[in-house]
Amino acid sequence: MALQFEILQKQGKARRGRLHTKHGIVNTPAFMPVGTCGTVKAMMPESVAATGAEILLGNTYHLMLRPGADLVEKMGGLHKFMNWDRPILTDSGGFQVMSLSGLRRLNEDGVWFSSHVDGKKFFLSPEESMKIQHKLDSDITMCFDECVKLPAPHNEVAKSMEMSMRWAKRSRAAWVERDGYGIFGIQQGGTYEDLRRISADRLCEIGFDGYAIGGLAVGEGQETMFEVLDYAPGMLPQDKPRYLMGVGRPDDIMGAVLRGVDMFDCVMPTRSGRTSQAFTARGTVNIRNARHREDPRPLEAECDCPLCRNYTRAYIHHLQKCNEVLAVMLLTWHNIRYYQRLMQGIRKALDEGRLDEFAKEFYAKQALGDIEEL
Amino acid sequence: MALQFEILQKQGKARRGRLHTKHGIVNTPAFMPVGTCGTVKAMMPESVAATGAEILLGNTYHLMLRPGADLVEKMGGLHKFMNWDRPILTDSGGFQVMSLSGLRRLNEDGVWFSSHVDGKKFFLSPEESMKIQHKLDSDITMCFDECVKLPAPHNEVAKSMEMSMRWAKRSRAAWVERDGYGIFGIQQGGTYEDLRRISADRLCEIGFDGYAIGGLAVGEGQETMFEVLDYAPGMLPQDKPRYLMGVGRPDDIMGAVLRGVDMFDCVMPTRSGRTSQAFTARGTVNIRNARHREDPRPLEAECDCPLCRNYTRAYIHHLQKCNEVLAVMLLTWHNIRYYQRLMQGIRKALDEGRLDEFAKEFYAKQALGDIEEL
Repeated sequence: MALQFEILQKQGKARRGRLHTKHGIVNTPAFMPVGTCGTVKAMMPESVAATGAEILLGNTYHLMLRPGADLVEKMGGLHKFMNWDRPILTDSGGFQVMSLSGLRRLNEDGVWFSSHVDGKKFFLSPEESMKIQHKLDSDITMCFDECVKLPAPHNEVAKSMEMSMRWAKRSRAAWVERDGYGIFGIQQGGTYEDLRRISADRLCEIGFDGYAIGGLAVGEGQETMFEVLDYAPGMLPQDKPRYLMGVGRPDDIMGAVLRGVDMFDCVMPTRSGRTSQAFTARGTVNIRNARHREDPRPLEAECDCPLCRNYTRAYIHHLQKCNEVLAVMLLTWHNIRYYQRLMQGIRKALDEGRLDEFAKEFYAKQALGDIEEL
Repeated sequence: MALQFEILQKQGKARRGRLHTKHGIVNTPAFMPVGTCGTVKAMMPESVAATGAEILLGNTYHLMLRPGADLVEKMGGLHKFMNWDRPILTDSGGFQVMSLSGLRRLNEDGVWFSSHVDGKKFFLSPEESMKIQHKLDSDITMCFDECVKLPAPHNEVAKSMEMSMRWAKRSRAAWVERDGYGIFGIQQGGTYEDLRRISADRLCEIGFDGYAIGGLAVGEGQETMFEVLDYAPGMLPQDKPRYLMGVGRPDDIMGAVLRGVDMFDCVMPTRSGRTSQAFTARGTVNIRNARHREDPRPLEAECDCPLCRNYTRAYIHHLQKCNEVLAVMLLTWHNIRYYQRLMQGIRKALDEGRLDEFAKEFYAKQALGDIEEL
């Protein structure tokens, strides 16, 4: 297949890898910032690149509604349209259809739904999703799948998983192979080990360039998620990248890496940038809190992002109070940079065979909480 | 006095100058982007600098309310607080008290007003305004003045102007002289030539580092404003910078430069960046208009800003439709860059003695309107 994945180091279940795509190399474990509508909210793409992000996630659902896949294709594909020349992974649209759209009618064929923007009717199916992701020129295409909210009974999850596996086969068949491009299957099965096993086997029979663990981070809690991650990644091929969709907070990522996951995406760092929440090595900080009002210290002394290098907590607090766009810009930048620094730290620790120490330090620091109030 | 101003070239009434301040040199004619609350909205300060802006305007009124002058002083002054190491001019707060604040009580002493943010009571007077601008560490302090809405009868404008001139004297007396810092007087008198003359004479008696033309761009229209500018700048000292406050659109600036004005400020480029309006050599463009939906061309082929270099009109249109912050960021950048390119063009034309040709071309191009629809 067209995507090449090297595993450089292993430590326990954790893996240090390198994924080669049409638009460049992705070092794993990797975190993908989310660029929903063809932009990572409040960031210039060159700034996203400056944080160290090597790959972005784009949302098929949002882009098919606005501006439409045909327009993006006409403009030379998503990379050119949004001025991002590094790899892009697009999801299949399935998850957003379930979580965002209005009126849905789902059957074996696919799903009719109405846009959350203007109520207009759209159809998505494995074939349609492949066509759209092709037009977007995604380096990594995701299979079109269905996913249920947890908790859900075994028979319901099984039924949904079985359909997703039939859709995975149709997705793989409809996807057009090209050099440097790849398609990932998505394991379903909720929190049921037997279903996860069946799903993994079905996907392996079809054969993919990488395997996602889907249907988690949908409200089941970290403990339950980790229970699944204790076995689910091991069911997937050793020599292919494993991607945990929609995860997560820094400690979710740390725990998932230790359990053998290679790729992540989440709106957390960008969304939090719009709600005054900053991620730091010592846990989250809400900069709107009055304790920061006269604090001349940087948010995080050891961070090299523009927010931490050039501004005081007092200034960011002031910007927030005034609802200034710059607060969102700087906090988003910091948060994405924090996530990338975390991934860089994880990769370095794996390179040096000291991931366990790194994880111990990570948890210890997170537990400290923010620096003392002045 | 402390600010040095050199005039390098003259052509007609127009002047090409260089103003030396504590934080660096300002080439004139100059346009100052507005950084109301200690940030040029939606711009990183390094991006503002990259547009070629050599000086910013800060608003005393906004900063005294939030975060307060004492806090800014404690954080090392406005330059350090907002990470802008080039010159800053601050207005006196007088204009915003009149236009933004609630309940006011004005007498010879000064003005009590309530904050538009939380209704809290504040007092501003010449002495208070000087104290605040000192704490902000403004390179250029503006006198505290009062200004009336136009049109207004002669006696009303005269009365207000007379008080502003007494306040100018008190401002000058309260201002603390320091190397590289300066204070500008503000000419008032509305559209009455005799009052403008009296005001100019009073200010010259007191003696300032520069002279602003105040009380214009308050609803009188361009024709009326230019009538005043036909005589008002000439009443002010030849060897000091002249600053037309709150002006304006590109053609306002062009016309004012031709009439002998050296400095400008306006929220136009930044505010328009938040309402989809872009300034170009061929007039304004509303990028939200459906005609841009599939337009693969840059907004302005000859512009070197990130928006014009890296994106299509279709992409910016898409961002706008999705209310993406990046649209505001890119449009603001473009607009400020457009203004700075205009000023650079004006200065170069003055250097080369061909300002009249430059102005002719400027007006001809503006009249063309946007490029043809595809």
